[in-house]
Amino acid sequence: MAQRMVELIEAKRDGAALSADQIHWFVQGVVEGRIPDYQSAALLMAIYFQGMNRQETVELTMAMAHSGDILDLHDVAPVVVDKHSSGGVGDKTTLVVQPLVAACGVPVGKMSGRGLGPSGGTIDKMESIRGWSPELDLARFKQQLRDIGLVLSGQTSDLAPADGHLYALRDVTGTVPSTPLIAASIMSKKLAGGADAVVLDVKVGSGAFMPTVEAARDLAQIMVEIGEDAGRRMAALISNMDEPLGYAVGNALEVKEAIATLRGETTAGMAVPPDFWEHAVTVAAHMVLLAGRVPSLDEARSLVTAARDRGDGLQKFRQMVAAQGGDVRQVDRPELLPQAPLVETIAVKRAGYVTRIDAGALGWTAVRLGAGRAEKGAAIDHAVGFVMPVKVGDRLQAGDTLATIHAASDGALRDAEEAIRAAVTLRDEPVEPLPLFYDMLGET
Amino acid sequence: MAQRMVELIEAKRDGAALSADQIHWFVQGVVEGRIPDYQSAALLMAIYFQGMNRQETVELTMAMAHSGDILDLHDVAPVVVDKHSSGGVGDKTTLVVQPLVAACGVPVGKMSGRGLGPSGGTIDKMESIRGWSPELDLARFKQQLRDIGLVLSGQTSDLAPADGHLYALRDVTGTVPSTPLIAASIMSKKLAGGADAVVLDVKVGSGAFMPTVEAARDLAQIMVEIGEDAGRRMAALISNMDEPLGYAVGNALEVKEAIATLRGETTAGMAVPPDFWEHAVTVAAHMVLLAGRVPSLDEARSLVTAARDRGDGLQKFRQMVAAQGGDVRQVDRPELLPQAPLVETIAVKRAGYVTRIDAGALGWTAVRLGAGRAEKGAAIDHAVGFVMPVKVGDRLQAGDTLATIHAASDGALRDAEEAIRAAVTLRDEPVEPLPLFYDMLGET
Repeated sequence: MAQRMVELIEAKRDGAALSADQIHWFVQGVVEGRIPDYQSAALLMAIYFQGMNRQETVELTMAMAHSGDILDLHDVAPVVVDKHSSGGVGDKTTLVVQPLVAACGVPVGKMSGRGLGPSGGTIDKMESIRGWSPELDLARFKQQLRDIGLVLSGQTSDLAPADGHLYALRDVTGTVPSTPLIAASIMSKKLAGGADAVVLDVKVGSGAFMPTVEAARDLAQIMVEIGEDAGRRMAALISNMDEPLGYAVGNALEVKEAIATLRGETTAGMAVPPDFWEHAVTVAAHMVLLAGRVPSLDEARSLVTAARDRGDGLQKFRQMVAAQGGDVRQVDRPELLPQAPLVETIAVKRAGYVTRIDAGALGWTAVRLGAGRAEKGAAIDHAVGFVMPVKVGDRLQAGDTLATIHAASDGALRDAEEAIRAAVTLRDEPVEPLPLFYDMLGET
Repeated sequence: MAQRMVELIEAKRDGAALSADQIHWFVQGVVEGRIPDYQSAALLMAIYFQGMNRQETVELTMAMAHSGDILDLHDVAPVVVDKHSSGGVGDKTTLVVQPLVAACGVPVGKMSGRGLGPSGGTIDKMESIRGWSPELDLARFKQQLRDIGLVLSGQTSDLAPADGHLYALRDVTGTVPSTPLIAASIMSKKLAGGADAVVLDVKVGSGAFMPTVEAARDLAQIMVEIGEDAGRRMAALISNMDEPLGYAVGNALEVKEAIATLRGETTAGMAVPPDFWEHAVTVAAHMVLLAGRVPSLDEARSLVTAARDRGDGLQKFRQMVAAQGGDVRQVDRPELLPQAPLVETIAVKRAGYVTRIDAGALGWTAVRLGAGRAEKGAAIDHAVGFVMPVKVGDRLQAGDTLATIHAASDGALRDAEEAIRAAVTLRDEPVEPLPLFYDMLGET
């Protein structure tokens, strides 16, 4: 066993492609605890340097997907469509997209995670709503999916346990940023979750994990290939994360913005950011398209927009909140959501064009306000954050609103003000707004 | 702690040079058990790919050398000279060199290891002598060094414990063949052993770890640099291991050959191989030179040769055997050493020039006969092995002796015959003999 693992490490170290048999043997050994972590760590680092070809990456994905239970939702949903976002600042897409897709008659049962570092997490955001819980067992998950066509739950540990183990190891061994390992990790969970079709939202920019469009496209491409090789319908969007998505950053603030977006009008003082709506409708339309509800993306967009206009999306969201124990009064009146004790609007000090917004720095600003975690398991404050109705390309005058900061203390507020001012670059020369999407792959 | 180690792994992964502080922190953490093996394994694999510069390698060596006790023998030896051989087939050099150097008035207290795979180990060979023991505590080690100027002991675990731990980890994570890691491992033990001067014997060829002269020279060069940076006198020989050293392969057989070589004449049927004597006198002369006994290598050679001719080397060997509990009658009459039940001489079947001898294959042949170990801790048979008085460049006639095989069973004998025949290539065209040394570095 130990010797076979050494041979496997050496083969990868020397640039060989691992066989399907070797990969499945390794993943099985990880799950059964037969392979010590130090050997896995050495292999992961060798993969970091030598990469994996398409076939290896597919095999790794399949082995990890099959390392635990495979969810089968076909008794309650004829086609299971899922989405994955690589995470970003102000990314409340799931809160708007899933209800809209459900409202289009496509059942969506989604598992989401919590936030870490500059990226927020869907579960954290939803927990701004009093009583709402992400904890559903499989029977309740299926029942709710059957009843209202929409579930938003936490990760269950039964799915792709090999990925859970290897991800924890990668996190402490400097082997996270490896394209085949990232692709296999994401796709193994999607396949174990029983998805027939997956829309991938791969972010690129200062507020995302992928630094360049090329790196993001490579990652998206291999994930689309994995899914297609496994017989799934796939689409991938390469989207911009060089500025926050929408205006709101912070848990309750993002829920408010999501509700405003589902209503299609300013609600409780929160406007509908055009970039966020465009992003949401594009993701939702791809999901509706891949589910086979309509034959074209244009028709899917129309369907999604109509569902929003009729208020069906908001209605689905409200039903989901109610089904999972949340206080629907906070959905109907978002001003009842948690409020920070200090709210202060800061103004631009000079006129100019917004040429750059450091999304990563803004994500960390939210963490320091208390909206996110620097370490796993830390407590968060759902009320705090900021709303920044400013985008690259905007022309601002001195005195215009730069941001409204929601803070728990004066010190935190001042720190956030300084950080937000530093994160926004103003120049005299006009610049173009940033694109929302750089590329789309797979079925689009 | 965990986070600092992740940053260290990532820095090396991305090709940065680690600081002295980082390296010492890491080694200290390994010894104290604060750094989990999976993080060490990831770092070792990153070092495999990204290498280490001279300063990093020196720091790693010094950190490992100081991870435990540093032996100080200056109360019994004014200058401590040590040697290291990278291991090979038929390499009984220590058995001849150390007594000769001691006979030249340079005290040598050496720690040696056991054999693994195709390379034999000095301790295994010496244990062919009834009663001889490598286990000496420090007080006895020093007393014997003071009394007779010669000690041959096993490794003590107090020296360079970080190296012991990391070597065991490298062995199971595919990270053994990394030049800076090999260099730091070897040199840390030499420095911890208190050596003022070190002669390195780096072997290259089919029976050695280093596959090319260039790789061996790189390794030797960095070890010489480490030693010199640490204020030690250093010499390195790049020697040939494309055929066995001397004729005998197998523990008692090699002891017999060493005794014949120390006597300078055929003893108990065992001849003195010219290549082995030349190798031994060259290594011994470098040790005598580095100890400062004489000002030139030529004078050192004369001194060593005279010590052999007077029988002083054999006398030192005999004293050491006696001091460590061995039966000196087996030194005086080597035919009393363990004898295999089956001894058979095999002859060459066709005339030709010996163009190639696969030393690695012959090493494994000895392992299969029972003379060595495929796995750590396995038992060995001291009597078995073979004597092959054949060298590349020799002209052989049909019927000439190819080898005399000493085996425990007929099956093992037949297997060895087949393997030895396959390991020797005969051609019609004459070829040059192989050089004994490819290069010498440092003080030579």
